[in-house]
Amino acid sequence: MPFTRFDRYVERHARTFTERLQTICRMPSVAARGTGMRAMAEAIEKLMQRSGAGTRAFKMGSGYPIIFGECGAGQHCYLVYGHYDVAPVGQLTSWSTGPFAATISDGKLYARGAANSKGDLVARLAAVEAYQKTFGKLPICLRFIIEGEAGIGSPSLHRFATENSELLKADGCIWEEGNKDTQERFVISLGFKGITFIELRVHGARTDLHSKWGAIVPNPAWRLVQALSTMTSPKGVITIDGFSSHIAPITPEDAEALKEIQLDEAGLKSEFRISNWVRGMRGSTLVKEHIFGPTCTICGIQTGHTEAGPKTVLPSDAMVRLDFRLVPDLSPDIVVELLREHLDVRGFKDVELIELGSAPVIKSSAQSSVARAAIETAQEIYGAPAVVYPLNPASGPVGAICGASDPPMPVVSFGTSYAGSNPHGPDENIRLEDFLQSVKFFGRVIHHLGQQARHTKSGSHKIPSAALTLSRG
Amino acid sequence: MPFTRFDRYVERHARTFTERLQTICRMPSVAARGTGMRAMAEAIEKLMQRSGAGTRAFKMGSGYPIIFGECGAGQHCYLVYGHYDVAPVGQLTSWSTGPFAATISDGKLYARGAANSKGDLVARLAAVEAYQKTFGKLPICLRFIIEGEAGIGSPSLHRFATENSELLKADGCIWEEGNKDTQERFVISLGFKGITFIELRVHGARTDLHSKWGAIVPNPAWRLVQALSTMTSPKGVITIDGFSSHIAPITPEDAEALKEIQLDEAGLKSEFRISNWVRGMRGSTLVKEHIFGPTCTICGIQTGHTEAGPKTVLPSDAMVRLDFRLVPDLSPDIVVELLREHLDVRGFKDVELIELGSAPVIKSSAQSSVARAAIETAQEIYGAPAVVYPLNPASGPVGAICGASDPPMPVVSFGTSYAGSNPHGPDENIRLEDFLQSVKFFGRVIHHLGQQARHTKSGSHKIPSAALTLSRG
Repeated sequence: MPFTRFDRYVERHARTFTERLQTICRMPSVAARGTGMRAMAEAIEKLMQRSGAGTRAFKMGSGYPIIFGECGAGQHCYLVYGHYDVAPVGQLTSWSTGPFAATISDGKLYARGAANSKGDLVARLAAVEAYQKTFGKLPICLRFIIEGEAGIGSPSLHRFATENSELLKADGCIWEEGNKDTQERFVISLGFKGITFIELRVHGARTDLHSKWGAIVPNPAWRLVQALSTMTSPKGVITIDGFSSHIAPITPEDAEALKEIQLDEAGLKSEFRISNWVRGMRGSTLVKEHIFGPTCTICGIQTGHTEAGPKTVLPSDAMVRLDFRLVPDLSPDIVVELLREHLDVRGFKDVELIELGSAPVIKSSAQSSVARAAIETAQEIYGAPAVVYPLNPASGPVGAICGASDPPMPVVSFGTSYAGSNPHGPDENIRLEDFLQSVKFFGRVIHHLGQQARHTKSGSHKIPSAALTLSRG
Repeated sequence: MPFTRFDRYVERHARTFTERLQTICRMPSVAARGTGMRAMAEAIEKLMQRSGAGTRAFKMGSGYPIIFGECGAGQHCYLVYGHYDVAPVGQLTSWSTGPFAATISDGKLYARGAANSKGDLVARLAAVEAYQKTFGKLPICLRFIIEGEAGIGSPSLHRFATENSELLKADGCIWEEGNKDTQERFVISLGFKGITFIELRVHGARTDLHSKWGAIVPNPAWRLVQALSTMTSPKGVITIDGFSSHIAPITPEDAEALKEIQLDEAGLKSEFRISNWVRGMRGSTLVKEHIFGPTCTICGIQTGHTEAGPKTVLPSDAMVRLDFRLVPDLSPDIVVELLREHLDVRGFKDVELIELGSAPVIKSSAQSSVARAAIETAQEIYGAPAVVYPLNPASGPVGAICGASDPPMPVVSFGTSYAGSNPHGPDENIRLEDFLQSVKFFGRVIHHLGQQARHTKSGSHKIPSAALTLSRG
């Protein structure tokens, strides 16, 4: 099927799609702060209806609604995951422009959430619209599941998945994490590391004290430092008792896949402004560690007085937030159990451990229909093979959706951003050219999935009408 | 000399003195923030003049002025140190009342700075006024040196002391740190621990990164934790190479003095809400550690994201503020040198060390005139001996004033606050009864110094008229 008409439609509507994205990016939707979430959810539902999807907002308790949208039909059904919430903006002074100004400069759109991942969401819905306008009906059924809590552990999504398992029966799932790497190669992932996000707390005196008491009053900050220092080696290897024995060896197939992956070490080091990688790694060792290495990252420590101006206090409390990224076969439960035991046997029973959120590791095959559709499209669009990661170093609530079935539903992930997008930092941005390419890309993925559907008979995932009343827009 | 008339004057003016204190406490003067400093300096100068002192404001460069005031005359001269700046207020929500409301409730005056140490300053000037109104001229010369930078390392005071050494020639110095302990015993100190306030910094990537990079990008927070963990043992003993060998043994005289000191362990533990002291110490071991133990206190750590709401980042920077309290013979220079060397030999050359401020340890004899005056007054006022600390666990810029001469000028320190004053925390307060007792106390100290002066001939500290033009108020 020639895509000339489709592409022309996208190009003719480039300005419309871009303005649509700007509108969405100008709406702050920081789940962690609770700002602008309802307006954003409503805007997303309207955007879906405009793209020809029937929609329904699922409100789970007091959480932010999940916007469910369906378009197309057929025996084969695919889930498209996305989220409308964005990360907190961080230090405003670090931004060159207002984080919700959605300014366009040098062909880039700057906004918190542009890369992660409003650009993906708007592009995919634009692709559905363009497909329908140029080809007619979609050859498959697509179900969009767009949540508002990706930044806060996705509690509603987990509940939604449990209570609406019928709606999740599908042949595969398309995720939204991905970018072009520093060498402009398109990255496709076949799974995600799991995550356990933990807070450790140590309590001291009832209030911060004058530090003249430092010789005799226990200091929770020192206690926390001493506890933490047992958890990794000075070289950055995780030394929690029993941790390494729960890590599955890399399969021969994955070892082969790793050989195809190269990190642009010089480009990334320059981008991050670092002089060395952890333990001086490089080459294939570095790639292997990036993709199959578990992590224990200190995301933040808070204790005592840290504002401008000296103040000599003995802190009353100390807190660290740690995120573990998990590889096969490390589960969130195992990590929590091992860490608690590790601290206890060293006498750190007073160190409080609070689980803030978790998601299991999900890993699928390059032979799935969704993976093949993405890999073939990348070859067509870029004239070069995509870089296929057997596991994405990032995590997400992918387990809630793909891990519900046994074996887990195949997942593939790719996105609109590029190496300079800085998705969790200041000046988050995407290139408008990538955005439009992303629309074209998704149109072709739909097409490939339709082609595959014609050659297979499996799959029958009609949505039970009792469970879902769709309001066709 | 009977103090009946003096005491009656103080009691008749109790309300005036209290209102004077409230006025001063309602003026915010946070040196670390630069708020209200000029107005406060002017108010202090007026207050001195009102008490019959000639004054002069010394402005050292861009620093906050040092208010110098002289009253009385005679061959014997004593310095009275104080400061008009206060500590930052910290978390406003932790206060029961506005930190500058100076509310009186249950006989206590609540305000940032009430205990540390506007109460002392106003009481001492009130005592000078009452003394002159009831006895006539002071029997000695008192020189008030009131700075505005106690909370930010006293840079102006150090420069003032260097440039005006003639003004500092005196027979002794009276400091303002002291309180009643949990058993209501009056505490007198004969010296102060030194201090070195240090910041350690580790730098990572140019900005906070998505923590998916955690397996391969160096994490400055982990680096800082590993560096810190080498500096103390899990039991809280300082393990910096060579540190302990620079600590002088406790003299037999000091060992005797320690025997007279008891910490109200149960009272303090209840006050602080802690269940144990460091290393489970108690009794004489605890007292010895409190007074002659050096400290390395983590005053604050800042790295990554610590606000409400989860955010999984790999921090770009990590910072710790450490304060070392120094005992004989540890000097600030030795500590910095040892710490740098300790870090370097362990491969932590990348850990940046910044000196934020320091003061040497100062320790004087119980036989000095100032010490005897305070000790005798305490016996008279309270009918019980004071608790005499050979070394105060706190520090201060005392070295700038007392350490300039060789041997160092004798110093004694006592104050107006009590065990519940919480001088660096929220709800800082003093009891009004203590405040008025403090006025009476200081009047008697003046008297004792005068008595001693009559029996000795040493001392001649006339202020060179060329150096100081006093405006008599």
